[in-house]
Amino acid sequence: MPAALRVTLWNEYVHEQLVEQVRQIYPQGMHAVWAESLKRQLGNDVTIHTATLDEPEHGLTDEVLAQTDVLTWWGHAAHERVSDAVVDRVQKRVWQGMGLVALHSAHNSKIFKKLMGTSCMLRWREAAEKERVWIVNPSHPIVAGFTEECFELPNVEMYGEFFDIPTPDELFTISWFEGGEVFRSGCTWRRGKGKVVYFSPGHETFPIYYDPNIQRILAGCVRFAAPTGGTYHGEGRNIPAPLAPIEAEHVVDESLHRAK
Amino acid sequence: MPAALRVTLWNEYVHEQLVEQVRQIYPQGMHAVWAESLKRQLGNDVTIHTATLDEPEHGLTDEVLAQTDVLTWWGHAAHERVSDAVVDRVQKRVWQGMGLVALHSAHNSKIFKKLMGTSCMLRWREAAEKERVWIVNPSHPIVAGFTEECFELPNVEMYGEFFDIPTPDELFTISWFEGGEVFRSGCTWRRGKGKVVYFSPGHETFPIYYDPNIQRILAGCVRFAAPTGGTYHGEGRNIPAPLAPIEAEHVVDESLHRAK
Amino acid sequence: MPAALRVTLWNEYVHEQLVEQVRQIYPQGMHAVWAESLKRQLGNDVTIHTATLDEPEHGLTDEVLAQTDVLTWWGHAAHERVSDAVVDRVQKRVWQGMGLVALHSAHNSKIFKKLMGTSCMLRWREAAEKERVWIVNPSHPIVAGFTEECFELPNVEMYGEFFDIPTPDELFTISWFEGGEVFRSGCTWRRGKGKVVYFSPGHETFPIYYDPNIQRILAGCVRFAAPTGGTYHGEGRNIPAPLAPIEAEHVVDESLHRAK
Amino acid sequence: MPAALRVTLWNEYVHEQLVEQVRQIYPQGMHAVWAESLKRQLGNDVTIHTATLDEPEHGLTDEVLAQTDVLTWWGHAAHERVSDAVVDRVQKRVWQGMGLVALHSAHNSKIFKKLMGTSCMLRWREAAEKERVWIVNPSHPIVAGFTEECFELPNVEMYGEFFDIPTPDELFTISWFEGGEVFRSGCTWRRGKGKVVYFSPGHETFPIYYDPNIQRILAGCVRFAAPTGGTYHGEGRNIPAPLAPIEAEHVVDESLHRAK
Repeated sequence: MPAALRVTLWNEYVHEQLVEQVRQIYPQGMHAVWAESLKRQLGNDVTIHTATLDEPEHGLTDEVLAQTDVLTWWGHAAHERVSDAVVDRVQKRVWQGMGLVALHSAHNSKIFKKLMGTSCMLRWREAAEKERVWIVNPSHPIVAGFTEECFELPNVEMYGEFFDIPTPDELFTISWFEGGEVFRSGCTWRRGKGKVVYFSPGHETFPIYYDPNIQRILAGCVRFAAPTGGTYHGEGRNIPAPLAPIEAEHVVDESLHRAK
Repeated sequence: MPAALRVTLWNEYVHEQLVEQVRQIYPQGMHAVWAESLKRQLGNDVTIHTATLDEPEHGLTDEVLAQTDVLTWWGHAAHERVSDAVVDRVQKRVWQGMGLVALHSAHNSKIFKKLMGTSCMLRWREAAEKERVWIVNPSHPIVAGFTEECFELPNVEMYGEFFDIPTPDELFTISWFEGGEVFRSGCTWRRGKGKVVYFSPGHETFPIYYDPNIQRILAGCVRFAAPTGGTYHGEGRNIPAPLAPIEAEHVVDESLHRAK
Repeated sequence: MPAALRVTLWNEYVHEQLVEQVRQIYPQGMHAVWAESLKRQLGNDVTIHTATLDEPEHGLTDEVLAQTDVLTWWGHAAHERVSDAVVDRVQKRVWQGMGLVALHSAHNSKIFKKLMGTSCMLRWREAAEKERVWIVNPSHPIVAGFTEECFELPNVEMYGEFFDIPTPDELFTISWFEGGEVFRSGCTWRRGKGKVVYFSPGHETFPIYYDPNIQRILAGCVRFAAPTGGTYHGEGRNIPAPLAPIEAEHVVDESLHRAK
Repeated sequence: MPAALRVTLWNEYVHEQLVEQVRQIYPQGMHAVWAESLKRQLGNDVTIHTATLDEPEHGLTDEVLAQTDVLTWWGHAAHERVSDAVVDRVQKRVWQGMGLVALHSAHNSKIFKKLMGTSCMLRWREAAEKERVWIVNPSHPIVAGFTEECFELPNVEMYGEFFDIPTPDELFTISWFEGGEVFRSGCTWRRGKGKVVYFSPGHETFPIYYDPNIQRILAGCVRFAAPTGGTYHGEGRNIPAPLAPIEAEHVVDESLHRAK
């Protein structure tokens, strides 16, 4: 029996404490809803830990990260309050194999932008409009088992193109918005030995994380981003001894650099 | 007639001044050889500017970058001496459309790593061994017109896998090394509106930049990385007015978040 | 001065002759509009030839194909009337370097499906609805110079996901439809030494090919799909003499297959 | 407990019966070695069925395919003897979700070429030379758990670039050959709802399928190619009723097509 997947759910946890509308939807924080949903879907295959901005080192100490297989990230109001040292630490863990699932406004988090190398900016609008999430990569494990081509969310914040990200390794959903935009809402990339997933639906003023399809995809993201074991070879290595014999008599053609 | 492509050749320019062996090969710096080669191949389609580490702001002021369409980068001994402010400036110009061509040991430069989001490390060996550069994407414009499937370099520094880069958008060459390694030696990515190219052959102790095939590919990299015009939309934008009408009567299903 | 790009515009040319509504929009066939538009935009850089279904060998003889750099394809009502021999011939020319630009309902043409290996089917609806074409790869040469993130077509046939194509090598546009769908409307792939482009807007009952943005993208597709020269090496080749010395003393470990 | 993965191992099974050298290595056919190896590694998670060329319908009846989750394919001497009807049947099952793992000389099989749309040809040499298989995508599930960056095969048939395949969705291994070539030896693609894997090591005159690393990767291929459930939506569908309201008052600008 394989060991349970160790998931750490990181939540900025600011809006839920400050904004009455958000607190009503997520009285114990969005992380409580994610935790319940993952536990219900994945059962004993998963152990859940949560961490938030206000904890020491944002709850992401070396010890916590060393025991994390997949880290999910939600932030919005306080990206700048996340310490650069913690961001560097998370990046290195991703390189070594830890999965990172960036949710909604985490597109603008320090860690996501650092892993992408782009601005990660986009268009947005808060108008409680409809979103349709279309599955464009139906054999992708994140959307395993869906029988419909799309599902609908009645009220969302619009996130639209141009979304300034590197070309995704895999694009699993594209979203349609009532107000006229489209969005690459589900994307994956590889960084070192780690997998990075971005999934956009999830605005704090709507009960999106209670939606069964969203919960299912979140579980899919976590499973997909799980480490695959083995060794990370990305530190660089001088290999003085060749694996195959090298002919000693190669001679640099000295005339070459005098040719012109 | 389109305006000439404005290319800035950035060279760390350390080895050529300090190491007799390198000075003999590149007496006026590698950038002098790149400049001559590009000028000869691209003629009036190109204007060449050079810049080096020791110039103020490494020769990469706002003014220089504003007039640069494609920046090529070679560094090795002094990556850490490049100022973070200049690196940030170059990254933003790439997002806005400037091409970046990272050469050889620039895999470990601050700017390349910042655009990639990975360690960009690799295996290496200095044994003057043979390299064969195999073209695996023969319709790619960078290798336009090659009639052979591969070409050979008699003496090189080996760069080998695992090369810790994001999956390339396009892989145009894979190198074979006599001592037993392979390497994704020619890669492209998009970052914002800019294109990034990495091409590995080019160690300073061998006359690699005099090789006609290498010179041809370097010209191909520069042409490919040229900006395509238009506007960069990656700063993010709040779009309050929808393009299409939004039905006012959408109602959040409040029961959802009490469902559990 | 490079030789002019030789473009062959292939049109099934059935609807324009049979359907009054279509004839009014395209009195001389859609190919006449494409030809005028490409000529106007590309001038002396292009020579235009047209071919249609009812010509002998559909106008695509060996001679015509041998003198074609880029072939554009529009078909709808009569895919099955295209001869398999001509389709095979076109496929082989693509492998050797000829570009193919498949337009609108050519998603279901024999040649496109043969090059893709999938069903290439999709959802569709004729309701004269609005389409917004969003540019998601702004540095791609096909959409060079666009300053806006999207443009609009007032009345189109909807083509929607799931679109059963191989993952595109490059995705340059995603379309939004008023009725609720999204579509990967602009895609590229490589096949052998040839490039394949699919671009979906273009239904025969709307004057879409008169739209300036569509005309501009069509010119971009043709330029992008141009051959890059060089030799096609995809016929397979036995290479008895190794490039590097092989040690004679390798011995198969015979015990291996008795190990179990 | 999930149902066991139903794997059908298809072997042309010609060389083993006709060539003494091959029979000595694979006395009961290569499929017997694959079967034993998969059973040993995957245990009750898998049920194995085998099929060969000489069986009626090559052993690939509708009934067999309907009960196959992943089909592996090895052929070499008799590609042309495989019936087109069976090839069509297999292709449609792949679209619907069945995984296909093409091994070694199956690069030239009808089914692989039909799914790829290219010639799938390559360079080759039989010289019993050394191959090194380098892992270039270390987080890919097919190579899960490998601690080394590469492994070696002492005697192989060389398969080299240019390999005329569509750009792989994912490239997991690149091979080095003693005689001077490189090869994209491990590749994946998606076709419809099905996954396609190509893995090249496996010449019949060497005991390659007894190699523990090769056996491990073969098990990885089979697991990766497993269907993910859900519905295939690639048959096309006319969707007359829009999901969102369409404004009736859109008017085609009739002047457009008279503009010229």
